Amino acid sequence: MTGIEEILEKVANKEMSVSDAEKALKSGSYADLGFAKLDTGRSERSGFPEVVYCEGKLDEHLVSIFKRLFDSEGRVLGTRANKHQYEIVREEVSAAVYDPVSRLITAGKPLKAGGMIAICCGGTSDVPVAEEAAQTAEFFGCRVERIYDVGVSGLHRLLSKTDVIREANCVVAIAGMEGALASVVGGLARVPVIAVPTSVGYGANFEGLSALLSMINSCANGVAVVNIDNGYGAGYLAAQINRLAVR
Amino acid sequence: MTGIEEILEKVANKEMSVSDAEKALKSGSYADLGFAKLDTGRSERSGFPEVVYCEGKLDEHLVSIFKRLFDSEGRVLGTRANKHQYEIVREEVSAAVYDPVSRLITAGKPLKAGGMIAICCGGTSDVPVAEEAAQTAEFFGCRVERIYDVGVSGLHRLLSKTDVIREANCVVAIAGMEGALASVVGGLARVPVIAVPTSVGYGANFEGLSALLSMINSCANGVAVVNIDNGYGAGYLAAQINRLAVR
Amino acid sequence: MTGIEEILEKVANKEMSVSDAEKALKSGSYADLGFAKLDTGRSERSGFPEVVYCEGKLDEHLVSIFKRLFDSEGRVLGTRANKHQYEIVREEVSAAVYDPVSRLITAGKPLKAGGMIAICCGGTSDVPVAEEAAQTAEFFGCRVERIYDVGVSGLHRLLSKTDVIREANCVVAIAGMEGALASVVGGLARVPVIAVPTSVGYGANFEGLSALLSMINSCANGVAVVNIDNGYGAGYLAAQINRLAVR
Amino acid sequence: MTGIEEILEKVANKEMSVSDAEKALKSGSYADLGFAKLDTGRSERSGFPEVVYCEGKLDEHLVSIFKRLFDSEGRVLGTRANKHQYEIVREEVSAAVYDPVSRLITAGKPLKAGGMIAICCGGTSDVPVAEEAAQTAEFFGCRVERIYDVGVSGLHRLLSKTDVIREANCVVAIAGMEGALASVVGGLARVPVIAVPTSVGYGANFEGLSALLSMINSCANGVAVVNIDNGYGAGYLAAQINRLAVR
Amino acid sequence: MTGIEEILEKVANKEMSVSDAEKALKSGSYADLGFAKLDTGRSERSGFPEVVYCEGKLDEHLVSIFKRLFDSEGRVLGTRANKHQYEIVREEVSAAVYDPVSRLITAGKPLKAGGMIAICCGGTSDVPVAEEAAQTAEFFGCRVERIYDVGVSGLHRLLSKTDVIREANCVVAIAGMEGALASVVGGLARVPVIAVPTSVGYGANFEGLSALLSMINSCANGVAVVNIDNGYGAGYLAAQINRLAVR
Amino acid sequence: MTGIEEILEKVANKEMSVSDAEKALKSGSYADLGFAKLDTGRSERSGFPEVVYCEGKLDEHLVSIFKRLFDSEGRVLGTRANKHQYEIVREEVSAAVYDPVSRLITAGKPLKAGGMIAICCGGTSDVPVAEEAAQTAEFFGCRVERIYDVGVSGLHRLLSKTDVIREANCVVAIAGMEGALASVVGGLARVPVIAVPTSVGYGANFEGLSALLSMINSCANGVAVVNIDNGYGAGYLAAQINRLAVR
Amino acid sequence: MTGIEEILEKVANKEMSVSDAEKALKSGSYADLGFAKLDTGRSERSGFPEVVYCEGKLDEHLVSIFKRLFDSEGRVLGTRANKHQYEIVREEVSAAVYDPVSRLITAGKPLKAGGMIAICCGGTSDVPVAEEAAQTAEFFGCRVERIYDVGVSGLHRLLSKTDVIREANCVVAIAGMEGALASVVGGLARVPVIAVPTSVGYGANFEGLSALLSMINSCANGVAVVNIDNGYGAGYLAAQINRLAVR
Amino acid sequence: MTGIEEILEKVANKEMSVSDAEKALKSGSYADLGFAKLDTGRSERSGFPEVVYCEGKLDEHLVSIFKRLFDSEGRVLGTRANKHQYEIVREEVSAAVYDPVSRLITAGKPLKAGGMIAICCGGTSDVPVAEEAAQTAEFFGCRVERIYDVGVSGLHRLLSKTDVIREANCVVAIAGMEGALASVVGGLARVPVIAVPTSVGYGANFEGLSALLSMINSCANGVAVVNIDNGYGAGYLAAQINRLAVR
Repeated sequence: MTGIEEILEKVANKEMSVSDAEKALKSGSYADLGFAKLDTGRSERSGFPEVVYCEGKLDEHLVSIFKRLFDSEGRVLGTRANKHQYEIVREEVSAAVYDPVSRLITAGKPLKAGGMIAICCGGTSDVPVAEEAAQTAEFFGCRVERIYDVGVSGLHRLLSKTDVIREANCVVAIAGMEGALASVVGGLARVPVIAVPTSVGYGANFEGLSALLSMINSCANGVAVVNIDNGYGAGYLAAQINRLAVR
Repeated sequence: MTGIEEILEKVANKEMSVSDAEKALKSGSYADLGFAKLDTGRSERSGFPEVVYCEGKLDEHLVSIFKRLFDSEGRVLGTRANKHQYEIVREEVSAAVYDPVSRLITAGKPLKAGGMIAICCGGTSDVPVAEEAAQTAEFFGCRVERIYDVGVSGLHRLLSKTDVIREANCVVAIAGMEGALASVVGGLARVPVIAVPTSVGYGANFEGLSALLSMINSCANGVAVVNIDNGYGAGYLAAQINRLAVR
Repeated sequence: MTGIEEILEKVANKEMSVSDAEKALKSGSYADLGFAKLDTGRSERSGFPEVVYCEGKLDEHLVSIFKRLFDSEGRVLGTRANKHQYEIVREEVSAAVYDPVSRLITAGKPLKAGGMIAICCGGTSDVPVAEEAAQTAEFFGCRVERIYDVGVSGLHRLLSKTDVIREANCVVAIAGMEGALASVVGGLARVPVIAVPTSVGYGANFEGLSALLSMINSCANGVAVVNIDNGYGAGYLAAQINRLAVR
Repeated sequence: MTGIEEILEKVANKEMSVSDAEKALKSGSYADLGFAKLDTGRSERSGFPEVVYCEGKLDEHLVSIFKRLFDSEGRVLGTRANKHQYEIVREEVSAAVYDPVSRLITAGKPLKAGGMIAICCGGTSDVPVAEEAAQTAEFFGCRVERIYDVGVSGLHRLLSKTDVIREANCVVAIAGMEGALASVVGGLARVPVIAVPTSVGYGANFEGLSALLSMINSCANGVAVVNIDNGYGAGYLAAQINRLAVR
Repeated sequence: MTGIEEILEKVANKEMSVSDAEKALKSGSYADLGFAKLDTGRSERSGFPEVVYCEGKLDEHLVSIFKRLFDSEGRVLGTRANKHQYEIVREEVSAAVYDPVSRLITAGKPLKAGGMIAICCGGTSDVPVAEEAAQTAEFFGCRVERIYDVGVSGLHRLLSKTDVIREANCVVAIAGMEGALASVVGGLARVPVIAVPTSVGYGANFEGLSALLSMINSCANGVAVVNIDNGYGAGYLAAQINRLAVR
Repeated sequence: MTGIEEILEKVANKEMSVSDAEKALKSGSYADLGFAKLDTGRSERSGFPEVVYCEGKLDEHLVSIFKRLFDSEGRVLGTRANKHQYEIVREEVSAAVYDPVSRLITAGKPLKAGGMIAICCGGTSDVPVAEEAAQTAEFFGCRVERIYDVGVSGLHRLLSKTDVIREANCVVAIAGMEGALASVVGGLARVPVIAVPTSVGYGANFEGLSALLSMINSCANGVAVVNIDNGYGAGYLAAQINRLAVR
Repeated sequence: MTGIEEILEKVANKEMSVSDAEKALKSGSYADLGFAKLDTGRSERSGFPEVVYCEGKLDEHLVSIFKRLFDSEGRVLGTRANKHQYEIVREEVSAAVYDPVSRLITAGKPLKAGGMIAICCGGTSDVPVAEEAAQTAEFFGCRVERIYDVGVSGLHRLLSKTDVIREANCVVAIAGMEGALASVVGGLARVPVIAVPTSVGYGANFEGLSALLSMINSCANGVAVVNIDNGYGAGYLAAQINRLAVR
Repeated sequence: MTGIEEILEKVANKEMSVSDAEKALKSGSYADLGFAKLDTGRSERSGFPEVVYCEGKLDEHLVSIFKRLFDSEGRVLGTRANKHQYEIVREEVSAAVYDPVSRLITAGKPLKAGGMIAICCGGTSDVPVAEEAAQTAEFFGCRVERIYDVGVSGLHRLLSKTDVIREANCVVAIAGMEGALASVVGGLARVPVIAVPTSVGYGANFEGLSALLSMINSCANGVAVVNIDNGYGAGYLAAQINRLAVR
């Protein structure tokens, strides 16, 4: 979708044949690895490099994608990775680092951006999702303040951190069970709140549905929701918002 | 189920025939009005008189039930009543009074009990449910403190009432949308919290399901839930708990 | 929650009694109208004044709230209002203006902020939700580009607007039925995309659930979701993001 | 249901007794193996031979069915097979071949038909379902163009294949998560689009429900949906459509 | 998306400026009516003209769209129309005809195609959906055989029509309640079966969900499903399949 | 499906041509009224005449069906009828009688069968469903004992009727809300219990889903369930069982 | 609940003290094993002995219950048993026999009753549920005709067994996927049809929900439904009906 | 939230600096362990010490929390613990005791309170949930009467315990499947009934949803519900109610 003008100029100047131009216009920018079409134009389009969702990928595919992206971008982020995947990646991309809590593989230096976001979570069981969000945001250049274990049944724990919440460029609120944290944080913050329902809980939480519905129906303004347990998505979005705030 | 011993004594003393005793043992205590079986033993069994669910009852049935109960108990409570129903009831039971917000008809003096319960609700749209709870509890002898419009997106409104919450014998927490109020109140109270999800909200609240799931999954201790919009049920239960506390 | 230090200083300086200070610390800032507790501190807390959800409010309450807020803030926004509500509000607040498509009442000048957001919707039936979002964002100081009727079954309509999408500080994607617009827009934008599922559709759309699930599961990065038909919520959030971008 | 006329002629000509004719009319055409009733008339009725759903079948039953069908039809297709099942089948039907990705066992030559169908899928995780569709369609005589990893968050990858889509006799669109691919493909194709929701995704995808609802509510014309992960069903249907187009 | 080559040739030949070419490539083909973007390229793309979904459209928009399409295409189909909409359309497009059962407005001659499709429905209450399907297919050039009131609780009614089902190029199976008709028809037909669940029924049919789930899980091969009550969608798809069969 | 032997005999005896026989075998027994296919063989097949579901039928169709069935069978039952439908039916079938509670139209004498069934319901709001069941069973020849308003929150009312329950050939248990009546009755009866969930209740009863799930999961043996509010279905089934018991 | 009269007579005759009578009236008949209360009066109440649900029972409890019931009744049926449970039971109750398909343990001779029921199932995967139903019914004295693998996509297989269906006292219809078998059988039978949805299938069958909804919404008369995979429940109910028919 | 007055007095008396006071007011009372924020003020706030939810906690965190709480409170309760967790806790807190049925770890003496509550459950499979409730209530000072295996299909078992139910200060009713026990107990008791749905059952019980809906829709007064399998929550709430009754 990019560079249309450039291609047309070349055609007008006879630097490019009509059929080559047609092909270029139609194919856009991706690298066809056979088993996958790497979206190599994403970095230009979105300002952030493509990220690799590791879960369920075949070993050779995973390694090949990681290598290709690291070579072209200088940095890669892989999500939902297990230890084995990390080990085979590291053989080809020695800069790769793994965090077993967030299940992220990172290689290369984080982007530079500046600006702070706050990440709150309700209980200690929500920490893996919170760390996925936090480290993703850090990879994309944010400074992250972690405000963990601040469930609403003991409000004073959260209230003691009001200052941090009010200084952030974006707040991520992560909770399972009834997901009430999002509304309470939404009432304290003056910036966008990204709510992440988690599957933490039991019984009628229905794998996170209760927290999802709760957060989607939040009575507070300025709250939007991503998928259940989707710490990566929240971290990405928070980094986008932070980038707007600091540019 | 009551008075078995008494019946048996009569049989042993030949004051009652075997067949009469059999009938008495089998029929228990109810008044068969033909169209309905009034549970006249309920007052003895539960300590509270039977309550009339008005919605959908035929006019003549409603009036007949009200009159019968008022005559035998000296007081009646009718729930989910409309104006027309009130008017026809009043013709036979002149002591009847109607409140259009809670949709309750009451006749006769409230029970005497003493003790205070607190009723909190999230927004002004929840008030009809809150009043159904409050007036039911008052009918059954509670003093009620109303803490309305204290949704969690402006926490200070609720926190300023912490003292009342901590003095009550029972707290009713009523909210629609994401129902987060129940968990926050549950964290502040030291007595049972009865949570009432309401159908207030829109979109993915699914007529109160979001608040119901939220409250059932509350991370706070000491919270139990009644049906969506069931202010009556919460008021009844709060009165039961209050009665235990003041007896 | 604000001004704690100030209160403490007064206590230390004997300018305020302990009991007055205790009351002040506990009550926070709200105006108790009896039937409601107006969150007068919201403007300071969030940077945006409190907004009135009109649906279901009693006439006298609505007018009283509008007047109070207009007098103190100089501007008010009312959502989900009907014509009758507008007319009674206008009698007290003559500056009030009504738009029957978005169902918004506005009074006073919009905030000044600058910056542009784009609002896309899938079909003409989604326009009321889109206008609620657009006019809310405008009230809070955004310039809004409207990209309507760009459903994904005729992709070229959307693609012809790629430039606008890529210049915006935030994009709102509004769609009913299968809600695919959010993912396609998410692939084109480099800024946060706020997705609004609508109840437009029929059959198995289940009043917007299909679009909600679709958007929550979006394969694109940088997409977060608000409640079904919640144009106001999306406009508010977009304005928050825009404010960060232009400050 | 077929051959009624023929039977009646025989009865009229005394070539068949009334009781034999009654039996024949009632029993239709199937082979009773004791544990199963093989629908041997299906090939005549549908033009395609019966297919074996392997999952959960007892070993001896599976082998016996395979052998019987291969002997009478000269070709067999088995779906949802595991490696062990393949190995025991191959002992009796040496022509059997197994593909671990699609989990299909095939024996005998594919049908001859001609004509091309296109199979698109959103991500690499959808490939097993896509291959089940592709190889089923090939078994029933289609030429298949595979267009894989063309999720809508990078539209240019799909758009570069528009020509293939527009030359096919039928297009199969396979996607998990939000399933938006079906609508986008539906907008590009002029032939029927068979949509296959997959269970790929996490969180609120609810094992494929989100993609199913999305596809059933597609805003594009000419899209119909089969069961979650049902690549076989889509391949079968595409082959039926292709057969109509090339006959 | 079409004519890229042609545009490029003009650029190469200096018959078109680079900026005009860029605009043309980006805008595709649609008519911007302000309130809507008419997809005027659809006829070329899909072979069928754009169809107007009438429900919920403003009067002046509806008339304007109808007139525009009728003028450019010579024929228009409008779905889910009410009587009032028909009357205002007829004032501008005098050729318009209305059928209150199917709620379709048609103007201009049907397409010519030839070929027969069969439309079966379970009960008389399903007839409006069946007629929407039938008349849509007729508008797009099919001959339609109607097989109505053939619910599976009286199988002989359906079996007596087996011949018609086996001669059709496509069969549409429409049923509410348990939707079993789709599977039974699927077992009799050798061509694709398009299943339409209807909202006919009561109790646990959940507005058509029971029939939808039933049809999506059909044990028969060659069955695909469209949205609840979506007769139009089924008719359109059947016409696409029929067109492939007769071309 | 009946009389195959007879037809074959005629063919063998040349009393019937092959083509006439083929037609007879294929068409089964129904009367084609154009708009509907009356299942005239049902009485022979099931022992009970066809019943007319009135809701949603066009006036002339309804009258024509009623007349046709009354003429051929001597009795008809119509369900879910409104007053208007009764009045137009009565003009043609003067024997028709209407009951506004059960919404049944009956014409002609009930079948004779003998034997008693018991019908229990939880509250007075369930009576319309209970009467639909009771009068249906009476039409098909049962004697019915009505045990109404015996909800499980006052068990003694039900227990006083244990003798009737234990003398019946079948018991129908009808309840809304939590539907517990089915399990309690199931524990008291020694004959089949047909459970009918009703849509009576509010809040999280979800139009009868709570009672349906409750009854389907009954811990008692010998309980089977029909659709929500389907009094007719329960009455029909009870009559079938009763007929087996008394034959 | 039984023998009230007898107890009263004894009291009147001074053969029993009042307090003993009170205890007897209150306790009913059960054997308190400490960990469980065996319902020893069930055989008298229901005509069938108590059945043991084995799944999840502790080993010593299971054996103790089996032994107790076998000693008092002379026969026992255990459902959902695994091999280990069978082996430990057999050590104490040597007459015990196990069938791994139906997972039933039986000990002692079946009841004698006579009469035939038919059990149909859709596919070979439904056989375990069908056998649970069949062997339960046999244990309670029925003769069972098995009609397996008669899914509706090959109707002639089922139609060839119409005679058996029409001779049975009750028909059990067992199917997964779309569960259409129940309606088709319901149209063929003149006796009650007990429908059993199974969890067989994949994708949107949601563990049997699709078949359950389908069967509950059956368009055929005389169909009632038991829980998913509940072959035991269907066999029990069929035996109750059969017993009524043959007594 | 407590001690505000005390802090303010110190400030007024210059015993505390303004900045220290500010910090104290903001931080409330919790112990920050780094990985968790222990709510050390809960005992004062709620009258009951904080309870440890063990499931999913890291070993070192669990032990550290247990030790800290035991040291400060003298007693601890841990829920949902496995054997391994008990063993590592016991190394540091030698007073710890484990019950594998309820999965509770207790250390220290129970609270003293007095008063009796009754805990009923439907079947032997519900015992683990019942024991979690019972032992929790005992830890918080209640005397507990266990009334187990009293499912409603054999009512006499429950009715024989009516006296205990009527003497309790609170009744907990625990059941899976259809959850009818709650309504029946609610009709017998005169005190609050806490209902606990369990996930016991199969098929359409949907992991406890059927019992949850049943209990939430109870027709009995004075019933409130906690989460599925949440024995702990019910025991806690019952202890709160009991404490009110005996104070």
